[in-house]
Amino acid sequence: MNTADLGLPVDVPSTALFTDQYELTMLQAALAAGTAERRSVFEAFTRRLPDGRRYGVVAGTGRVLDAVENFRFDADVLGFLRERKIVDEPTLEWLASYRFSGDVWGYPEGEVYFPGSPILRVEGSFAECVLLETVILSILNHDSAIAAAASRMVSAAGDRPLIEMGARRTHELAAVAASRAAYVGGFTTTSDLAAGFRYGIPTVGTSAHAFTLLHDHERDAFQAQVNSLGRGTTLLVDTYDVAEAVRMAVEVAGTELGAVRIDSGDLLLVAHRVRQQLDELGAAKTKIIVTSDLDEYAIASLAAAPVDAYGVGTQLVTGSGHPTCSMVYKLVARAESADPKAPLAPVAKKSTGGKTSIGGRKWAARRLDEQGNAEAEVIGTGPVPGELADRQLLVELIKGGQVVAREPLDVVRDRHAAARANLPLSATQLSRGEPVLPTEYI
Amino acid sequence: MNTADLGLPVDVPSTALFTDQYELTMLQAALAAGTAERRSVFEAFTRRLPDGRRYGVVAGTGRVLDAVENFRFDADVLGFLRERKIVDEPTLEWLASYRFSGDVWGYPEGEVYFPGSPILRVEGSFAECVLLETVILSILNHDSAIAAAASRMVSAAGDRPLIEMGARRTHELAAVAASRAAYVGGFTTTSDLAAGFRYGIPTVGTSAHAFTLLHDHERDAFQAQVNSLGRGTTLLVDTYDVAEAVRMAVEVAGTELGAVRIDSGDLLLVAHRVRQQLDELGAAKTKIIVTSDLDEYAIASLAAAPVDAYGVGTQLVTGSGHPTCSMVYKLVARAESADPKAPLAPVAKKSTGGKTSIGGRKWAARRLDEQGNAEAEVIGTGPVPGELADRQLLVELIKGGQVVAREPLDVVRDRHAAARANLPLSATQLSRGEPVLPTEYI
Repeated sequence: MNTADLGLPVDVPSTALFTDQYELTMLQAALAAGTAERRSVFEAFTRRLPDGRRYGVVAGTGRVLDAVENFRFDADVLGFLRERKIVDEPTLEWLASYRFSGDVWGYPEGEVYFPGSPILRVEGSFAECVLLETVILSILNHDSAIAAAASRMVSAAGDRPLIEMGARRTHELAAVAASRAAYVGGFTTTSDLAAGFRYGIPTVGTSAHAFTLLHDHERDAFQAQVNSLGRGTTLLVDTYDVAEAVRMAVEVAGTELGAVRIDSGDLLLVAHRVRQQLDELGAAKTKIIVTSDLDEYAIASLAAAPVDAYGVGTQLVTGSGHPTCSMVYKLVARAESADPKAPLAPVAKKSTGGKTSIGGRKWAARRLDEQGNAEAEVIGTGPVPGELADRQLLVELIKGGQVVAREPLDVVRDRHAAARANLPLSATQLSRGEPVLPTEYI
Repeated sequence: MNTADLGLPVDVPSTALFTDQYELTMLQAALAAGTAERRSVFEAFTRRLPDGRRYGVVAGTGRVLDAVENFRFDADVLGFLRERKIVDEPTLEWLASYRFSGDVWGYPEGEVYFPGSPILRVEGSFAECVLLETVILSILNHDSAIAAAASRMVSAAGDRPLIEMGARRTHELAAVAASRAAYVGGFTTTSDLAAGFRYGIPTVGTSAHAFTLLHDHERDAFQAQVNSLGRGTTLLVDTYDVAEAVRMAVEVAGTELGAVRIDSGDLLLVAHRVRQQLDELGAAKTKIIVTSDLDEYAIASLAAAPVDAYGVGTQLVTGSGHPTCSMVYKLVARAESADPKAPLAPVAKKSTGGKTSIGGRKWAARRLDEQGNAEAEVIGTGPVPGELADRQLLVELIKGGQVVAREPLDVVRDRHAAARANLPLSATQLSRGEPVLPTEYI
């Protein structure tokens, strides 16, 4: 990974250990059996959306590309695998020179997806592809869960901006990925400095209750903040009495006060009162920011309130009830040799229990209706019908081991907005329902 | 952080950016106002347990110590803060020499906690303490959520071992912390190689369905696996027909076959059938491992089934319905100067809305009944009553900026088992209920 280019807040020397042990033991057994080099196709997909959700959001693809590029076994890692006797010497030798040399196609990041959508397709030898399973799923399952929640919140907020502020509610590095996914989903800013550093996402933040409590009087705190951060700052007005604090805030900062933040209480009621008070004090341009365990439903319920921006923490970083997706990474086809011309045979688990999947290397396309709106997710294993040829969803991401599709996060964010806008209107209903597009198999 | 000592799978050069921007803007304003050096006490605690949970589990403390030790602003980070105009030059200068120099006391890792328990107490100047809020909460909120779920699953499993295998369902680095937290909660092993590398947790894993599908016949796959991994391996028997696979597994590996794994279907029913079949085939010592979206309830429902070990993924790493705790980090007392003799005044948010907290620097003790079982969580701000003096919960973790309480993870794990065993019996009921100990304030 080009950590220097990307300005990582953490330098990840290798992603190779973000891996379940069985990937390596399967490799060992396949190497010994002579089947490790069989040409194989793996696909990442989900059998269903989280209960009641109407669409999924592909997020994390850019991070997957970094992870694949940086998946290598250095001396420390090999020493660990040897010492713990996790795999044998021939396998360690094979791992020492591991570089993914295959091809990856996938839904472009920010696209929407539905049950069965082949979100990522990884092709190469069994050995080189199977190793990537765990880290690919970790990234896609986490980031897509956050992006899906973000997308719903953005729909609920209409044209009001959303601030991601959930770092304290999730693992410190998951938080950075969550900020990124929230931005893909349409959030505007983040409180997480690491996300600003790593991904260039605009960061915001002014003060917490501790700052008010540090000072002898609330007025001292407001004065200190305005002196240092300017009149355009956001003052937190609910440490003691909200009405008193709003009065004092305007007294201290004047009518150019940037914003007030409300972090507790009945936000609908309080926002109305504060708006009225601010207007009466002549601070008609002072904005109101609300934060307090918001989710997409709370945001929607504040649509008629005089609120200018929402800050969202817990519910964003925990996927608003669905903290992970159920994406799986399955071998769907393989040849009997490494020969690129050997025919690929579709394979699939057959056992009972609802975990079956459909074998074969798949294409996917989104069929449009006469108005140009999305109408169905069409998935097939044979030739692509002519009328769907230019509506295909998979794009080339890695070609012969080289990443070919890095893109700025703003492009991804815009893509998601466009993809969501192209769905039937019911996509953005918050109520529980079926996937808004049917999946059709050809 | 002594990354060399600790064998990190990722080298984290600094934890300083795992921080919400407002911590830094508060610092700037307080520096300018002359209040930044006021002696302050912050406490991390939770106002409530997740709905229906009967106890919490402190986890992540060891990671907090690493994070505090490694919280420093290097040239890259300062350059970012300058370029983005996040704070002014005097603040950047102050940050450049930042090292936490205060004291931290806390519940020892693995302890149980209840609403109001002062899980961590951070003392020093306002400036040095406020900066640590975000990263401390990230770690405690994430790790404690996972450990609490793990602890319930371990209770449900009785003396059967639990395998953590959720890496693919959460962020790749959250997964490593989740493995650690699961181990604290009583899990036995993990599939996550990074957790083995970083924390020395025993790792396990043999094969997935892809390995069977790679081969021309299931028998070929079994033979390849047994050839390479030995007869003691675990064969996955639900790719096609379970009964046929079990028959073939014993045929290939003999009656010394280590275990079979079942990953789909009605586990209760299938486990009984497979046990009977294995016994009839003479493989009475071959174990049965089940994995398939298990949670504590599913584990409990299999208590009467002939199952030897459980593998748990999604529900573990997502906290079994509660992926985060609601721990907060609040200024509870502060002096009017940096003078260590200046009196500490208790402070607390007073506004309505349920977010009030109790001011003052707190101690905590667990009162025992006559049988020596835990009876109440007692929290106070004044002198500790004599009869509770030797039942105090907070221990010194950092003294004058130096970590003084690093400990092996096995010690933490044993502590949790002992703490849980000391709770009233109803603690391990899986049904929803009130916290099993009342919190009393003195």
